[in-house]
Amino acid sequence: MSRLHVKYRLFLFAAVVLAVSSVYSQAAQADDPLPSWNDVSSKKSIVEFVETVTTKGGPYFVPPAERIAVFDNDGTLWSEQPMYFQLFFVMDRVKAMAAEHPEWKQKQPFKAVLEGDIEAVMAGGKHALLELAMATHAGNTTEEFSQIVKDWLATARHPKTGRPYTEMVYQPMLELLAYLRANGFKTYITSGGGIEFMRPWTEKVYGIPPEQVIGSSIKTKFELRDGTPVLVRLPELNFLDDKAGKPVAINQHIGRRPIAAFGNSDGDLQMLQWTAAGQGLRFCLYVHHTDAEREWAYDRNSDIGKLDKGLDQAHKRGWTV
Amino acid sequence: MSRLHVKYRLFLFAAVVLAVSSVYSQAAQADDPLPSWNDVSSKKSIVEFVETVTTKGGPYFVPPAERIAVFDNDGTLWSEQPMYFQLFFVMDRVKAMAAEHPEWKQKQPFKAVLEGDIEAVMAGGKHALLELAMATHAGNTTEEFSQIVKDWLATARHPKTGRPYTEMVYQPMLELLAYLRANGFKTYITSGGGIEFMRPWTEKVYGIPPEQVIGSSIKTKFELRDGTPVLVRLPELNFLDDKAGKPVAINQHIGRRPIAAFGNSDGDLQMLQWTAAGQGLRFCLYVHHTDAEREWAYDRNSDIGKLDKGLDQAHKRGWTV
Repeated sequence: MSRLHVKYRLFLFAAVVLAVSSVYSQAAQADDPLPSWNDVSSKKSIVEFVETVTTKGGPYFVPPAERIAVFDNDGTLWSEQPMYFQLFFVMDRVKAMAAEHPEWKQKQPFKAVLEGDIEAVMAGGKHALLELAMATHAGNTTEEFSQIVKDWLATARHPKTGRPYTEMVYQPMLELLAYLRANGFKTYITSGGGIEFMRPWTEKVYGIPPEQVIGSSIKTKFELRDGTPVLVRLPELNFLDDKAGKPVAINQHIGRRPIAAFGNSDGDLQMLQWTAAGQGLRFCLYVHHTDAEREWAYDRNSDIGKLDKGLDQAHKRGWTV
Repeated sequence: MSRLHVKYRLFLFAAVVLAVSSVYSQAAQADDPLPSWNDVSSKKSIVEFVETVTTKGGPYFVPPAERIAVFDNDGTLWSEQPMYFQLFFVMDRVKAMAAEHPEWKQKQPFKAVLEGDIEAVMAGGKHALLELAMATHAGNTTEEFSQIVKDWLATARHPKTGRPYTEMVYQPMLELLAYLRANGFKTYITSGGGIEFMRPWTEKVYGIPPEQVIGSSIKTKFELRDGTPVLVRLPELNFLDDKAGKPVAINQHIGRRPIAAFGNSDGDLQMLQWTAAGQGLRFCLYVHHTDAEREWAYDRNSDIGKLDKGLDQAHKRGWTV
């Protein structure tokens, strides 16, 4: 308990393993809520934090209603390599919709997608990606889009592992989510990914219900179609939930400041800063991908999930690394 | 149970009484979860609905996670007469801030507010109200604004009753909120009022936590001030949570369709339509203000809380009135 005088702490959690339900024994799980955590120091810190804020009468006790924990998704709860999984969805949607759009064969960035030329797609930059996202995410109702995502997840497979994307989740983080909830925490996702892209599966995969998913979004419009109300998805960005947008979205959605935040990239820095600056004890953790053998190793120089400023801040402020 | 074959029902609940905690006996409350409900038919329908969707194994059972109930605030949970309470806040803020803004003495609509000329303020229409709202709601941090609201509520009094605004709430609706929650419902506010104006007090007054409050909002911006992160409130509308905006906001915030909705004006019509159109049994209720003696009576011709199209729809579709 010697370090509990510090207001908040940030840890870099190095070891991540992809979730395979059979890799750890059920017996071990019963005694230990975090059996897959090989990083002894990080694990000890988390348990210490949770025990401290849940100790009634203790100096750092936090009432259950205020035990808010926010998690980035891409690279924190599930993998983001070799590229964001939602981009695979975009590519597959372009191919599936190509028959209705013969003009795409001649039109960039669609042409590059149809030819499987990922490099050319990426060369188009943010503008090309936004155009692809709008073409594949808008023009349907919220219910139709939800079904499209579910259908895609049922058959799509990760190009390297051949596994469903919803199995490319990190076992230690699943344990952490369950451990926090067992201790009265409300767990939220705060992702740069699409809010409606995540909601159809986060409850089943992470135990996080739709109302606790925060993400980027496009605008929607209420319409009566033959007397039946629908929400139509429009090709217009509503909110980009990344970097300085994350604290804004957290405040908009939750209306109170989290006491724990978990991320893996510079896109999560402001969310961690916002969390750390609150009153009382706070817990912030960066998942640092260092295991090239079982997963991917990347940080400062990665196009996806770049962790550079976050590492600097950790070093500069003397946070535990 | 004879009417349970209908997919949804809408009731006009006529009798509302302002909450006074001593008007009903504690003994009565123990036996009856809705002791203040004088409208026998509405009360019976609500209890029947709740019992039906919570009966395990029954044809209309709804799992607890999906028991979402949404409530309008102004005119549904608390009073909205002689004008929206948030407008009183705006007027008081203009007066409190006037010393820092000597130019307001000569500038409309501020001049009218400072002279207490409500009619002149209203004559300025939506544009004037928006200008007043931005001047009084923006330019501070989220934490500062929350404190301003709390300070105002502590001293402000309703012009007719002389009571704090947070006591101008409807006792039957407080009972209904508690009754629904006791039956596993998650209760939300979906109001045209400001989300940050409501959050500081809804938990204490209604038992509704900040993350279950949906409302209109202005944009905010993340900033580091001397190294401390703050969210600055900008004089720019982010979202107007009224009419067709309500289903949009419900979807954005909750990500699933409510099974029960409660409103009192045409501003709630789309929210009720959206709720009613879902699968399974649904419950929609309009609070109809008819008691001029104990409260206010108004509907089709009211500037505030106009209920006109909603009544038409109820009649046209044969909803129970």
